Amino acid sequence: MFNDVTIVGVGLISGSFALALKEKKLAKHIIGVSRTESSAKKALELGLIDEALPLKEAVAKSEFIYVAIPVDATIPVVLEIMDLVNDKQIVADGGSTKFALSKALADHSMRKRFVSTHPMWGTEYSGPEAAVHGAFAGRSCVICDAEKSDNTAVNTVEDIYKQLGMHIVYMDSENHDIHAAYVSHISHITSFALANTVLEKEKEEEAIFELSGGGFESTVRLAKSAASMWVPVFMQNRENVLDVLNEHISQLRKFKASLEKENVAYLTELIENANKIKKIIK
Amino acid sequence: MFNDVTIVGVGLISGSFALALKEKKLAKHIIGVSRTESSAKKALELGLIDEALPLKEAVAKSEFIYVAIPVDATIPVVLEIMDLVNDKQIVADGGSTKFALSKALADHSMRKRFVSTHPMWGTEYSGPEAAVHGAFAGRSCVICDAEKSDNTAVNTVEDIYKQLGMHIVYMDSENHDIHAAYVSHISHITSFALANTVLEKEKEEEAIFELSGGGFESTVRLAKSAASMWVPVFMQNRENVLDVLNEHISQLRKFKASLEKENVAYLTELIENANKIKKIIK
Repeated sequence: MFNDVTIVGVGLISGSFALALKEKKLAKHIIGVSRTESSAKKALELGLIDEALPLKEAVAKSEFIYVAIPVDATIPVVLEIMDLVNDKQIVADGGSTKFALSKALADHSMRKRFVSTHPMWGTEYSGPEAAVHGAFAGRSCVICDAEKSDNTAVNTVEDIYKQLGMHIVYMDSENHDIHAAYVSHISHITSFALANTVLEKEKEEEAIFELSGGGFESTVRLAKSAASMWVPVFMQNRENVLDVLNEHISQLRKFKASLEKENVAYLTELIENANKIKKIIK
Repeated sequence: MFNDVTIVGVGLISGSFALALKEKKLAKHIIGVSRTESSAKKALELGLIDEALPLKEAVAKSEFIYVAIPVDATIPVVLEIMDLVNDKQIVADGGSTKFALSKALADHSMRKRFVSTHPMWGTEYSGPEAAVHGAFAGRSCVICDAEKSDNTAVNTVEDIYKQLGMHIVYMDSENHDIHAAYVSHISHITSFALANTVLEKEKEEEAIFELSGGGFESTVRLAKSAASMWVPVFMQNRENVLDVLNEHISQLRKFKASLEKENVAYLTELIENANKIKKIIK
């Protein structure tokens, strides 16, 4: 158990992570760092953190520092932290993109004290109020470029995630970003675009509200996700996301062609191929 | 309470409807009609129905006949039933498209004994095993062209859905199909296309399986849905679905353009617009 842990960010991931550390008795005292005073106050009120401090002060006191903020801010903040830590402290992040961060940290003298992670859990909500108990359990957590970190640091971070009920997957950060584009980032773009489609075409909002069954709600759920989190993810993983997005548009065009040509056999084939996702997603 | 009810189809909607009728004590005896002997047998085993009979025999015995089969089969089967019923019996369907059926029935002498309905509930599963207890509750049910049915028939069918916990919405069948394209049919196409995108691009199935968090699963869930149900829906509602699909592709192209041009302001605007779906979907 750590005596003092710093959580940078007091939102969905960071707040849920802080709650989980307390619940699993992995930290005695949790210090929150937030650029926004109102968020820090809210996080204290909600009991996500025990104390709010400026970054330097917080890092100086902490054995473990966990960063979960938008991925554009992650790079300078992690670099700042790495300049402050000694070779007993451990730093980790929980961001949705990993390659840009990996490059930014490559030559840092304390690189081995950093562990690059991506717990594959989230909801469409954000801010301290979005933090929930029991997050992360049953999901995968990717640890990237483990060979670039000290074994002790990797083992400690792994052990935390395992105690939170996560299954560890190892990957290099470049591959992580490719896979994340397929299984997470494109889902968000699809969902945002679907919301915009319906909002554009369906002026009778009452009809959407009354008619939407579970199908629409589950497909469009991610469209509630915050731009402040997702714009930086899409920009950092731009090339992979564009690659998958182009494929997605071309797949939709196949449906369009099959309908335009009233080609029932082709439409059936497209749907039956999609059904193969059953093998993968239970 | 009805003495005898016929359910045509013994799948997700029909089977769940049969279970609900029994649970709410709305029917003493439920007769199932299925083209597939193995499905009828399964439905008997599962207790969805009390008896399996051919259509004619079943209709002759029943006060209420409920049809929930793929929408292409619905039209000839409902026409066949209408030729068999007297002016005390009530017929209703639960299909996802309503306009083609409405046109097909327009001149039938027994039209007034038919009630056109669409309970906005479903899952991605199909067949007798997909039937569940407690379906329908809390969702909307559309009743189309109510003025074309006898008041007594509409009131009886409404009362059943209300006892199942549904909220009734009235709409003409043409408008129903337009709205259904927005809030249901496009979600399925998006989900099928997303599954095909991932299956096409992501050859490492293990990676999808391990990395997919809740976001991907909820967006792609509908891609498990059966072609036998959805091909007829898309074909019957082809023009509306194409209209919405074209808009959806154009919305995705906006995301593509914003990424290609690295236009952060535009990308943010697209996402913030999508967030407005929060007003509509709780």
